[in-house]
Amino acid sequence: MAGKMKTPLVVLNFKTYMEATGKNAVRIAEMCESVSEETGVSIIVVPQPADIRAVAEATDISVFAQHIDGIEAGSHTGSILAESVRNAGATGTLINHSERRLTLADIDAAICAARRTGLKTIVCSNNIATTGASAALKPNFVAIEPPELIGTGIPVSKANPEIVSGAVDGVLKIDPDVQVLCGAGISTGEDMAAALKLGTTGVLLASGIIKAHEPRKALTNLVTGI
Amino acid sequence: MAGKMKTPLVVLNFKTYMEATGKNAVRIAEMCESVSEETGVSIIVVPQPADIRAVAEATDISVFAQHIDGIEAGSHTGSILAESVRNAGATGTLINHSERRLTLADIDAAICAARRTGLKTIVCSNNIATTGASAALKPNFVAIEPPELIGTGIPVSKANPEIVSGAVDGVLKIDPDVQVLCGAGISTGEDMAAALKLGTTGVLLASGIIKAHEPRKALTNLVTGI
Amino acid sequence: MAGKMKTPLVVLNFKTYMEATGKNAVRIAEMCESVSEETGVSIIVVPQPADIRAVAEATDISVFAQHIDGIEAGSHTGSILAESVRNAGATGTLINHSERRLTLADIDAAICAARRTGLKTIVCSNNIATTGASAALKPNFVAIEPPELIGTGIPVSKANPEIVSGAVDGVLKIDPDVQVLCGAGISTGEDMAAALKLGTTGVLLASGIIKAHEPRKALTNLVTGI
Amino acid sequence: MAGKMKTPLVVLNFKTYMEATGKNAVRIAEMCESVSEETGVSIIVVPQPADIRAVAEATDISVFAQHIDGIEAGSHTGSILAESVRNAGATGTLINHSERRLTLADIDAAICAARRTGLKTIVCSNNIATTGASAALKPNFVAIEPPELIGTGIPVSKANPEIVSGAVDGVLKIDPDVQVLCGAGISTGEDMAAALKLGTTGVLLASGIIKAHEPRKALTNLVTGI
Repeated sequence: MAGKMKTPLVVLNFKTYMEATGKNAVRIAEMCESVSEETGVSIIVVPQPADIRAVAEATDISVFAQHIDGIEAGSHTGSILAESVRNAGATGTLINHSERRLTLADIDAAICAARRTGLKTIVCSNNIATTGASAALKPNFVAIEPPELIGTGIPVSKANPEIVSGAVDGVLKIDPDVQVLCGAGISTGEDMAAALKLGTTGVLLASGIIKAHEPRKALTNLVTGI
Repeated sequence: MAGKMKTPLVVLNFKTYMEATGKNAVRIAEMCESVSEETGVSIIVVPQPADIRAVAEATDISVFAQHIDGIEAGSHTGSILAESVRNAGATGTLINHSERRLTLADIDAAICAARRTGLKTIVCSNNIATTGASAALKPNFVAIEPPELIGTGIPVSKANPEIVSGAVDGVLKIDPDVQVLCGAGISTGEDMAAALKLGTTGVLLASGIIKAHEPRKALTNLVTGI
Repeated sequence: MAGKMKTPLVVLNFKTYMEATGKNAVRIAEMCESVSEETGVSIIVVPQPADIRAVAEATDISVFAQHIDGIEAGSHTGSILAESVRNAGATGTLINHSERRLTLADIDAAICAARRTGLKTIVCSNNIATTGASAALKPNFVAIEPPELIGTGIPVSKANPEIVSGAVDGVLKIDPDVQVLCGAGISTGEDMAAALKLGTTGVLLASGIIKAHEPRKALTNLVTGI
Repeated sequence: MAGKMKTPLVVLNFKTYMEATGKNAVRIAEMCESVSEETGVSIIVVPQPADIRAVAEATDISVFAQHIDGIEAGSHTGSILAESVRNAGATGTLINHSERRLTLADIDAAICAARRTGLKTIVCSNNIATTGASAALKPNFVAIEPPELIGTGIPVSKANPEIVSGAVDGVLKIDPDVQVLCGAGISTGEDMAAALKLGTTGVLLASGIIKAHEPRKALTNLVTGI
């Protein structure tokens, strides 16, 4: 996957949308796989934990978890163990999404748990300062998502390009090996092209595709705009 | 299941033990199913979310989630949606385990989410007062587990029988329809018999079986002591 | 204070309003004391922790903390110790306000810490079910505040009288010694009269007085409407 | 204070110790002031919020809060507002102590709140990675405290010098303006001398002084060992 990641990357977060739960999760993942094959754009799907195994078994697409806890195997009822999602077929995970904020110590512990099990990591952050701080923890990716734009349809790459380029510059100084994604309000190929032009590796999005009237058309539009 | 629940009940929490993750989760669930069929004792297995579907597909045993969030479908990255675990095959869920404490408002919201999707609920609590408070929220079960005894092998039903009988009495006054389980330190048939004698419907346990040298033997010993 | 509490009670939460911080906290507390003396209505003021001592030294009015943690003295940096606010002059505390939700176990522990130090307790709750659950923990008061009405100026006692009378009935069944307050949107004497008529002992409010153009006039209006 | 901070610095955390609550807080702060005057070593005292004003009024020593929330004035019952502790006399604050961990976004927000009100900031962290991440947020100080050594009497500066020098090096690369403190197990002058030799500006400690048989003697020993 390391090689694929140098091409533009689309990370599709299924959140807890019914349109992306159970059989719908598999159906959307299959659609993503088909669009990825047609266009050559790398796509990662991010289903709920109970759907990871079914999605991983039905497709060859990269599957990430939405969250893992910074724990080792043991007495942690209700936590998400890195080994469990890895075993189910995930090859990476989001960490610290704005809808699931973690303590700094737990972000670090989750990255360590991911490394231990061979999961790639995308740490989400809300501004330039916290993106730099996240990069200091050496995840594979940071994803800057201003919370006030999430789910609005107002693309961060166009509404607030300075926050994206500022995050790219800040991360470069702290650790040039960490790649930068951006999210919040992204839905069209134009939004994605703007994100790439600002120095990101790709985008993290959810409702723009999952809640679209025609998800396949929306995704194709997104990736062919590059 | 409502009918089965009147017989003694064993709830086996898989926590995030490697011995109960992935293929091991299925293997232990199959063992539980076999012991349940041989002995007539009701057993519920509680695997991690990524293993719910595999366990539910491989067995006919009741499968509960370890945790759900009190949310509706929507933008809740990293949360556990009741509909998702239900769809994967769970028929109930633990709520508020001592390793995953929730706010009072979230316990109530999780019970509502469970009701909405037809999941049974077991609310865990730490003392007589919080067990009564949990019963006031009308879950199917409350499970009293003094945190200081969890994982010790010192059974609450013998070390602190007053807390168990006090919880049973307290719940009876608040809502006689709520059944009481107890946990913490339970591992032998004698511990379980003591729990039932104190007025509980059954026990919640984990390491006493999962970490046993011979889990099947340990489980058989537990349920034949009744 | 126990005696005073049988008369209608007004609990004025200073939140983290600048209008009720530092010297302003003392000024508002003095105004409350004066209105209480004039009208005979019991008023409790609830300043921020750093202002408790100054308010308690400047007035004879009852001072409650906004929050305490369910801890004992020890290594708990950043927590609010019951003994600390008691020593500064508080005679009670809010617990589990909607802006500071606690786990069920921590609500219980905070009530125990309050009892240990002689602090009265008001547990805030969001609906009928959680109000009943709170009452099962035996605080002095429960205060039902539907979060969706807080700060709106739409009084719960008029917009949703069923939730208030339902809470009063529910608490009566669980523990008749626990008194019920209501909050959210309360600002006028009419709102307060409606609350008392529904069986509550009084009201919990904040912006309706603190943010009023003329706080003294607003408070006088509130308490003379009874 | 900026000038004083270039000399060795001792930060004394009062935690929620009874020995440092109420009148005891004032008494210990006065003792610290006296030792500081005698020895020329800068000392900052960190009492509970309800004691900040009394300590600030009784002494000229620097007073820091144990925690602030990353909020603005408003509806935040139970939170610690930067303006409130500043008004009471604090000139700085700890943030993210191991006993009060915050989300990454909240650490950043708390630093912003502190800057807004002119409070100095000490962000606590648990290892080299999170110390670097904290430095990226541009507080005045970071304080590395391996949680496993806190309260043990085993000084981090001697038990694990690599973690201290590693933190100093890491912070230097990310932002040379951020000063590094270390804590955990520090109690003697020898421990403090070792900490300074490793490149720190000073130490953060609590029980080593507060719980000492003779606190003044313990503090004098600490600062004269430099």
